[in-house]
Amino acid sequence: MEEKRHTSLHYEKELQAIKDGLIYLGALTETAIRQAMKSLSERDTELARKVVREDDEIDRLDTDLEERCIKILALRQPTAIDLRFITTAIKITGHLERIGDMAVNIAEKVMLLNEEPQLKPYIDLPRMAELVGDMIEDSLDSFVKSDLKQAEKVRQMEQVIDDLNEQIFRELLTFMMEDSRNIHRALLVMQVSKNMERIADHAKGIADMVTYMVTGECVRHRACGILE
Amino acid sequence: MEEKRHTSLHYEKELQAIKDGLIYLGALTETAIRQAMKSLSERDTELARKVVREDDEIDRLDTDLEERCIKILALRQPTAIDLRFITTAIKITGHLERIGDMAVNIAEKVMLLNEEPQLKPYIDLPRMAELVGDMIEDSLDSFVKSDLKQAEKVRQMEQVIDDLNEQIFRELLTFMMEDSRNIHRALLVMQVSKNMERIADHAKGIADMVTYMVTGECVRHRACGILE
Repeated sequence: MEEKRHTSLHYEKELQAIKDGLIYLGALTETAIRQAMKSLSERDTELARKVVREDDEIDRLDTDLEERCIKILALRQPTAIDLRFITTAIKITGHLERIGDMAVNIAEKVMLLNEEPQLKPYIDLPRMAELVGDMIEDSLDSFVKSDLKQAEKVRQMEQVIDDLNEQIFRELLTFMMEDSRNIHRALLVMQVSKNMERIADHAKGIADMVTYMVTGECVRHRACGILE
Repeated sequence: MEEKRHTSLHYEKELQAIKDGLIYLGALTETAIRQAMKSLSERDTELARKVVREDDEIDRLDTDLEERCIKILALRQPTAIDLRFITTAIKITGHLERIGDMAVNIAEKVMLLNEEPQLKPYIDLPRMAELVGDMIEDSLDSFVKSDLKQAEKVRQMEQVIDDLNEQIFRELLTFMMEDSRNIHRALLVMQVSKNMERIADHAKGIADMVTYMVTGECVRHRACGILE
């Protein structure tokens, strides 16, 4: 088997390829979120369909990255540090794959929303999508640079997103209260916002793993798991 | 290191311990779901708090199982078959951990619901909880016995749960429509039902992994990933 004639150089290349793969996968998920948001604000159902279609590529890349990490674990004898890097990479790709699924959830709600007149102009949601996209970028950047400060920044952003989601939820509740014809659409928009908040939670999960990788310290219980 | 003086018997014991650990973890998540449901139907906030508290133990066991699987991957040279078993086990424990989180989500909604008068008697939700608990049991049973028929049964059940969730959603929508004072409570009950449906999806994910482990065939794309 090719893995058997293992030179240290070849091994280093494998680890670098996993890093590059995660960055690329992160970029795809960011695009998915921004496009899902654009399909909502511009009522572009075709773009929403595109987000759903292109998730297959995210799944494929995630699977490929996971398999390469497992091969390294199974066929090399990674040092403690490499073991932490590889298991962190496995967790990160899992987070990114689920972020892709949530972009699909959003796109699916958008398709339904675009069949009805717009409930209200969207102000907070596009802002939320921007911030969430930045969180993914920053979390992966903190991984590549082993930058604890940047990881901490991502964790702080998550609270901002939670507050935004809460604010959006309350506003939509008033729309539901004042006219029952708003209820169905308001529910769909709530689900979009909720999915955005879950994406932010995954970005925080990535940041927690980076902190764990660099310091060995658990930021929260779930970050301690070798795999998530 | 202990793992180094590896006898085949010791190795077999490690694999069996992982199997036992997954069954025990599955039993804990089932209990969490049934108690979360009981705390809703009997308006028992103290029981809901217990579900939240005891999720720490589920997280701890999940982390422990994951670490043991990773150790085997990193320190043994597993055969192809063992590799598939171990990576399936890692995926299953991840599903179980997230099922525990959803039981916590349910318990948290219950605490809020118990602060207000009951919206309606619950008929479908307890039934849903029973079925979902059975799905977890059957999915783990299919793993232990490598039973493809049982795995298929779990997949079929997931459709039943989706339909139940849809039915509950529609019924709650009518409550929201007829009186805006019902909206907030109906939203909370919808979230309970949605979490139940997500648990069923994880049980299906376990069944998919069993089919992948036994046949090497992907039931759906996500099942192909070595890790989820």
